[in-house]
Formats: sequence, structure tokens, C-alpha cells
Amino acid sequence: MKLYYAPGTCSLGIHVILEEVGSPFELARLSLQSGDHKKPDFTAVNPKSKVPTLQRDDGSVLTEWPAIAYWLAATNPGAGLWPGDPAEQTRALEAMDFIVGTLHGHAFSRLFNQGKYAPSEADHPKVIEQGRAMVAAAYAEIERKWEGDPWLLASGYSVADAALFYVTLWARKFGVDLPPKVAKHWEAMLARPAVQRAMKTEGLAA
Amino acid sequence: MKLYYAPGTCSLGIHVILEEVGSPFELARLSLQSGDHKKPDFTAVNPKSKVPTLQRDDGSVLTEWPAIAYWLAATNPGAGLWPGDPAEQTRALEAMDFIVGTLHGHAFSRLFNQGKYAPSEADHPKVIEQGRAMVAAAYAEIERKWEGDPWLLASGYSVADAALFYVTLWARKFGVDLPPKVAKHWEAMLARPAVQRAMKTEGLAA
Repeated sequence: MKLYYAPGTCSLGIHVILEEVGSPFELARLSLQSGDHKKPDFTAVNPKSKVPTLQRDDGSVLTEWPAIAYWLAATNPGAGLWPGDPAEQTRALEAMDFIVGTLHGHAFSRLFNQGKYAPSEADHPKVIEQGRAMVAAAYAEIERKWEGDPWLLASGYSVADAALFYVTLWARKFGVDLPPKVAKHWEAMLARPAVQRAMKTEGLAA
Repeated sequence: MKLYYAPGTCSLGIHVILEEVGSPFELARLSLQSGDHKKPDFTAVNPKSKVPTLQRDDGSVLTEWPAIAYWLAATNPGAGLWPGDPAEQTRALEAMDFIVGTLHGHAFSRLFNQGKYAPSEADHPKVIEQGRAMVAAAYAEIERKWEGDPWLLASGYSVADAALFYVTLWARKFGVDLPPKVAKHWEAMLARPAVQRAMKTEGLAA
């Protein structure tokens, strides 16, 4: 397996999951700043130009964060990253979709690249303001729905925790106030050896 | 079970799935034009103010399209809406995440509400242009990855087809050129009695 990643982006969550699983994997590092994700070498692998991208041993390529997470968790049951019960599996998907699709895809995305939203530069501060409000609202909803301790789900640690981890890395960089359960979750994640290995490989500080 | 829906929105896909499953369900109709989704009666059920929202018989509430679809498919195996093999399950999730998150969430969203993107009205035509380009690119990627006939997955009909169906309803309204496999898929969906029942109940024409 080979993970195409860019340091400190959402691919960090999949990198953590690969470390948790413990099977051998290769890493292919992209620099988004250099536009590596738009170069032919990479678009031949994933025309969506996005990380994380996982190339499996048979050469087939998986995209979309929740789908990659599901694949790794479901095919490595020994790692205990996917709940056994359909109700809890559904909660895991619900949490991942909200974190990846809304908190990352709509809220943080406005803090990263205002030009994707407002063509006029004069409007960019408004886009940032809107993004910050959306980040706060999404974290409030995550805190409200929290069911476990310290992990998101009542059934324990899962791939959904790796999703929350990568966005919270960003939240801290942007000075977002973390609700208490999210703050405790961040500390619990940092204590995991798999998280420490992924952070070290990507050259990241907590 | 009760589905909170708004006619012709993404909740149509979940409505189709409920019709496919065939168990009894109630419908609660919201008008997005009237702002029903932001009124206290509904935000008490789902603070995200979004359809589809599914209230289960025990009162618990499910949000996020792929999670609701997974729940209905996994707990109603007789309906045959969820593949048995993890590789195909992963493809179903990958397709749903791309359709719901990117094609709907980023591309069509720009055609529905430019004000969410660009504060300056003068920029709205640019947002529409960007949205149209994103819709075309996403459909091209869906066509490229197509594996079944006429359904998305090689393993046959699944909840991913219901996701593609609701966006293609929009594509036709916006005059988007459909790639051949997507166009054939649309016709195959319209021939399904479950789709016909959901369309009729929502007062929609193909």
C-alpha cells in the first residue's frame, strides 16, 4: 500500500490509521505549495488531485477520506478501529462525514483559501469571518453529540477519532477555542504511539 | 421512522431508499423557501438545520446522507442495497462521499446559492461559472470510474445509485450535459417503482 499525502493536511488522519493498523505501507509525499497534486504524475493516479489517496497492492486506487478509513478499518479487524454494531458503525460514518464534509470541507476550507469562495479580494475578510463562525458551530455540534470518553463513540476508539484529530491540529493553529471534550480528545490522541509516529514522520509539532 | 425532507432536495435520495426498503415510514415535509429548516421545531430535532434527517422509532436522530443510507441498507439486508464484499462496500462509500460531498456540496451548491460563496453580488456570475465547471468535472470523474451497468457498482444496485439520482435531477434542471453512462442510469432509475413512488409523493416531474 502507498499513501499519497501532504504534511499536516487531512491525509494526516489516514496516516494515523495506517500506523494504528501496523501493516507495512509506503509514503509518497506531495507539496501542495509546489502544486504536486496538479502535476501529471499524480493526476494519473488520482484525477481528483486530492490527498489522501491510497494505492493498494493490486494497483487499485482509493479516494475520499471516509472510504479509505472504512477500507483500512474493515479489512484489518484486529486493529479494532471499526465498531462491530451497525448502530455504532452508523455513528462513525455520521461523525466522519460531518468532520470531513462540513467542518473541513466547508468551514476550515474558508480559512485556508478565500479565493475559492470570493473572487473579490476585498471580500476575503468576510469569508474568513464566515469560516470561523462555521468552525465554532461545527465544534459545538460535535461536543453536543459526543458519546464516549475520551473517544467520540461510546464503543471506543475508531477511525472517526483520526478524523477529528486532523481538524483539531488546524483548530489549534487558527486559535480556535476547543470545547472541553474536544480538548481532552486532542490530548488523548497525542498520547497514542501511532499518532506520535505519524506526526514525527510528517515533521509536525502538536 | 420519520424522514424530514424537502421536495426535490438531497432528501429525495433517502426517500427513494426508504421506498426501496419497503418498511413503513412517515414523512415530515419542510419548505426550505419558508425557512422551515431554521425554525425551532426542526432545529430541536437536528441543530444542523439540514435535510435529510431521519428520526428512528426509538426517537434517536440520524444525520448525514451517507450515514442514513448506510443505516437503512445495513439494517435491511433483504432490500439488497448494500454490497456484501468490503471492497464493493468501500466503492459504495467512495461514490456516495464524492456525489454528496463534492458534486452536491461544492459544485451544485454554487449553482443554488452564490451568496454563500461571494458576498459581492457582482461576483455571482463567476461563482456560477465555477460551479458549472465543477459539476462537469465531477460527472466526468463519475463516468470514468463507472463499474456496473446500468448501476454504478459492478455488484449491482446500491444506495450509491440513489445518491447519483438526486443530483442528476438537478443536472437536468440546470441543462448539464450528462455523460452516456449517467444518462442511461437516469432512465434506469426512473423505471424503478420505488423511484416513481418517491417522485410522485414529492410532486416532482422527471
